[in-house]
Amino acid sequence: MAAHTDPRYLRSRAAILDASRDLLVELGPTAVTHAQVAERAGVGRATVYRHWPRSDQLLGEAMATVPLPFFDAPTVPARDWLRAELTALARQLEHDTVRAVATTLANSALWDANMDARRERFASILMERLAAALEGAHKRGEITLSTDPRSAAALAIGPLHYRSTIEHGDIDADLVEAAVNAVGTWR
Amino acid sequence: MAAHTDPRYLRSRAAILDASRDLLVELGPTAVTHAQVAERAGVGRATVYRHWPRSDQLLGEAMATVPLPFFDAPTVPARDWLRAELTALARQLEHDTVRAVATTLANSALWDANMDARRERFASILMERLAAALEGAHKRGEITLSTDPRSAAALAIGPLHYRSTIEHGDIDADLVEAAVNAVGTWR
Repeated sequence: MAAHTDPRYLRSRAAILDASRDLLVELGPTAVTHAQVAERAGVGRATVYRHWPRSDQLLGEAMATVPLPFFDAPTVPARDWLRAELTALARQLEHDTVRAVATTLANSALWDANMDARRERFASILMERLAAALEGAHKRGEITLSTDPRSAAALAIGPLHYRSTIEHGDIDADLVEAAVNAVGTWR
Repeated sequence: MAAHTDPRYLRSRAAILDASRDLLVELGPTAVTHAQVAERAGVGRATVYRHWPRSDQLLGEAMATVPLPFFDAPTVPARDWLRAELTALARQLEHDTVRAVATTLANSALWDANMDARRERFASILMERLAAALEGAHKRGEITLSTDPRSAAALAIGPLHYRSTIEHGDIDADLVEAAVNAVGTWR
């Protein structure tokens, strides 16, 4: 564990994480590769591999410390907004690395308290944002919700997540539309 | 690898798997513990641990070779049948070991071809069974499907799977009802 207090070790780790977050925010998850991160961070590729042997681990680390870009700014009409947000999420869930981050998170959360805290953070941010947006839509008379608004995330994201991580299939526009309609009756 | 051709090793492995399958079918997933499997198989508990250090690995192995008990015998009216089947699935998904099997399967399928074949088998059995049952219901005039019937598994199981593996929350009757209604418009 001596290496973990070595200033060079800590410096390269911080530089790699900064580069990963920048690439994630600027170019999306597919840009968070060992090669691009090494170039951006100004370190050797072998150094990136030493810190994070797998790219999904590196992406998971970057995602945990970057603001989640989904469902964060609701617009009216809510139905169009929800369709656009779910479509954006679907495109992310089709990347193998994002799939790996999602399934590693769910799996290691079962025995790793640190990962469980990340899972909980992701899940509750998505739950609360969708609940708030749909309660707003409900008040404006745009929708009659079919359940507790805090179930909207499970109803709308669940089908996309299942298609991606269990069925390994494409998330087409029909599935997104059905997910939009699953949260309630749109007016 | 010499131990893997040792007749005693192979015999105890087969006895443990048989016992695990029997317990799974007779008593459900919570019965597949190291202690109960050892007793039923007539081997020492340490032997079970040597073959399968974690109980979710043992359960995953047993589940992979036992007929899946979900959505296998549709009855009429289909809406009541679907509600009952999803409720039964929800009760299973609330067990930590089943959650572990589900997330380990999804996660290790990404790099382990053997696990990926299991994932594919589970996913396609559930997809085909639900599609066939809902096409039957559609022909009988019980429902107007909202999408391709092969999306019904993602729409109905997805919310329960997400609630269990991502949100770690209870799957209540309201969520099950919303999942039943997500697949189409019931008459």
